[in-house]
Amino acid sequence: MRRLRTQVAIIGAGPAGLVLANVLTRAGVDCRVVERRSRAHVEARARAGLLEHRTVATLRRHGLAGRLLSDGVRHGWCDFRCLDRSVRVDYGTLSGGHAHWVYPQQFLVRDLIEALGRGGVRPLFSQTVRAVADIDTTRPRVRCDTLEIACDYVVGCDGFRGVSRAALPRAHRVVPHRYPYDWLTVLAEVDEAAPGVVYAVGAEGFAGMMPRTRHLSRFYLQCAAGDTEAHWPARRIREQLHARLTPLPRIESLPEVRVLRMRSSVTEPLRHGRLLLAGDAAHVLTPSGAKGMNLAIADAAGAAEALVRGLREGDAGALAAYSGRRLAEIWRVQEFSDRLLRLLHLPPGEDPRFALRMRLAAIERLAEPGPHAAAFAHQYVGSGAEGSGDGRPD
Amino acid sequence: MRRLRTQVAIIGAGPAGLVLANVLTRAGVDCRVVERRSRAHVEARARAGLLEHRTVATLRRHGLAGRLLSDGVRHGWCDFRCLDRSVRVDYGTLSGGHAHWVYPQQFLVRDLIEALGRGGVRPLFSQTVRAVADIDTTRPRVRCDTLEIACDYVVGCDGFRGVSRAALPRAHRVVPHRYPYDWLTVLAEVDEAAPGVVYAVGAEGFAGMMPRTRHLSRFYLQCAAGDTEAHWPARRIREQLHARLTPLPRIESLPEVRVLRMRSSVTEPLRHGRLLLAGDAAHVLTPSGAKGMNLAIADAAGAAEALVRGLREGDAGALAAYSGRRLAEIWRVQEFSDRLLRLLHLPPGEDPRFALRMRLAAIERLAEPGPHAAAFAHQYVGSGAEGSGDGRPD
Repeated sequence: MRRLRTQVAIIGAGPAGLVLANVLTRAGVDCRVVERRSRAHVEARARAGLLEHRTVATLRRHGLAGRLLSDGVRHGWCDFRCLDRSVRVDYGTLSGGHAHWVYPQQFLVRDLIEALGRGGVRPLFSQTVRAVADIDTTRPRVRCDTLEIACDYVVGCDGFRGVSRAALPRAHRVVPHRYPYDWLTVLAEVDEAAPGVVYAVGAEGFAGMMPRTRHLSRFYLQCAAGDTEAHWPARRIREQLHARLTPLPRIESLPEVRVLRMRSSVTEPLRHGRLLLAGDAAHVLTPSGAKGMNLAIADAAGAAEALVRGLREGDAGALAAYSGRRLAEIWRVQEFSDRLLRLLHLPPGEDPRFALRMRLAAIERLAEPGPHAAAFAHQYVGSGAEGSGDGRPD
Repeated sequence: MRRLRTQVAIIGAGPAGLVLANVLTRAGVDCRVVERRSRAHVEARARAGLLEHRTVATLRRHGLAGRLLSDGVRHGWCDFRCLDRSVRVDYGTLSGGHAHWVYPQQFLVRDLIEALGRGGVRPLFSQTVRAVADIDTTRPRVRCDTLEIACDYVVGCDGFRGVSRAALPRAHRVVPHRYPYDWLTVLAEVDEAAPGVVYAVGAEGFAGMMPRTRHLSRFYLQCAAGDTEAHWPARRIREQLHARLTPLPRIESLPEVRVLRMRSSVTEPLRHGRLLLAGDAAHVLTPSGAKGMNLAIADAAGAAEALVRGLREGDAGALAAYSGRRLAEIWRVQEFSDRLLRLLHLPPGEDPRFALRMRLAAIERLAEPGPHAAAFAHQYVGSGAEGSGDGRPD
């Protein structure tokens, strides 16, 4: 058994764990990252790809945005299609000049691992954590098969099914939600990807198109709750994309097809003793609004700040406030994501004629300059100014 | 058979028909109002009671707001209760100083009949319209049992089940919606009415409390779709009000208990030949957001303007544009009303824990100064500035 000693043990080398490790390292807090998968695996895992304004601001502040700023593509509008109308929501302008950056998650993960390496820290890959122990003491431990890390704090960034969340006492509640549909998510090679996000609302079900790279798009197709990939041969996918989402780029191939269970959850509180949760370990979001990775990075920044203040400045207040502060934000983001989903899907069992008119009216309001559209734009793009104040750029 | 000749025959002496008749009369357009019920009946019919800022502005502009301004009560906040929290939404301040006026519909109807009388017009009460004929000609007719009115235009302000809507050709569509619940509506004599609107959201169902006069409140209780008054003896009503809406004023008596079918609909288009629809004949709204009477008066003002321009100035453009203009507004208001209903009721079949957290997060955002709360406040209070522009008071 190899034994290590560090100040902060971070479980999981996704965006949350890696941002946290980078920020701590730069602030002079010693940390270790353990990750179940191999480096090659995490650097190839295509997931999210839309970074919010404030996420980019956070990465930039910590010197982690170099490649993203040079290779990423700024993006500030989306189209809603409904009842034969296409409504452009120019949220970049409506939010006073903020934008998303399109930059695939796997590229960001690669950049974050490289940046960490430059600081002399290498994540410990292919290490399965078996136990998070002694979190009620001042010397918690993270145990893998051939490795044990003794530390001051553990931060669980290992997802909803990770060992960290399971290490919380039973008094921590998970508030779960299951939507009455799932999404088929399809990565597609295309002749020329549409430059913007397209949301199509219709009686046959929702369909969405997200830009990734010039020749790669991600598509979403609403399907029945509990549906499986076996019901979605390539021909059916193409048919449904054409039926729900025309005009479309030409689809060359479909390298990845998965059914995504549409569920959300929030764990409360996010801290017990010396264990903090961040990212998907703390909350599950649907892909609606592309909030998951952005919220994970905001968690990581919040945890880093609290840990630096606790470990370097002897101020335990920020650690005590971590859970409450993050949960306020997490519920706000869940509400936004839920609101967008309800705009994009018809309520089961309702007359689609009225429901579609309601949605078209709501969509048109998102495009009309005024406080309603500004509020949506700020929250969608994650300007950091949507919460309160006057909604001007920060 | 008594025969009359007028420029505009108005069917229905509710708020829409009476505002229309007053505005036309003041503009020198000759009109007649026929009403199925007696004057005593319409002057005693307790329905809506919350007038929006722009409704009051319209009434004031036409000299119809005297008593309302002296006897009505300005109202600019509401409370949302959810998960043991009470959140005050100060929409008067959030909208930059606009307010509702609390003034019972039956008082307004009385004032409008009096004002019309001062202009020399008396509605023809207790006249049941049997047919609206010849609307495709330039000389339509309204036929009652012992009366026939020949006119240039007919405006149907006689509600969803009135003869006017039925006179439209079949090509006019009704887009209907049925909500999966009904509301028990209760008029209650109380020791001291709460001064503001209270919305309570909970797992047992929605409950609402609306101010009417100092000793009169209107309550709403969500009940099963298709429920009947027989299932709601006074004891059950009191129990449910206490369970859902504590703290409550002391309830002295319950003079009126009805089940309100929660449905909406919009008729498209709102005009055929020489027949125009306004008010409930054009659209059914639920009581959510207290929009029905306000929208009816806005329809009446729009119809009056179009008719004055058509009949006095020979400009048919405004009449041609009437349906399109009103429908754009009607769908916006339906969407607001629907959005508020979805905030106040839990989706059937969903886990209430998550659904209540979503609602609390949404409610808290309505109270936080910023563009989101401003947009809601403007639309709720009907400032007239919520549609576009910067959201400042008009």
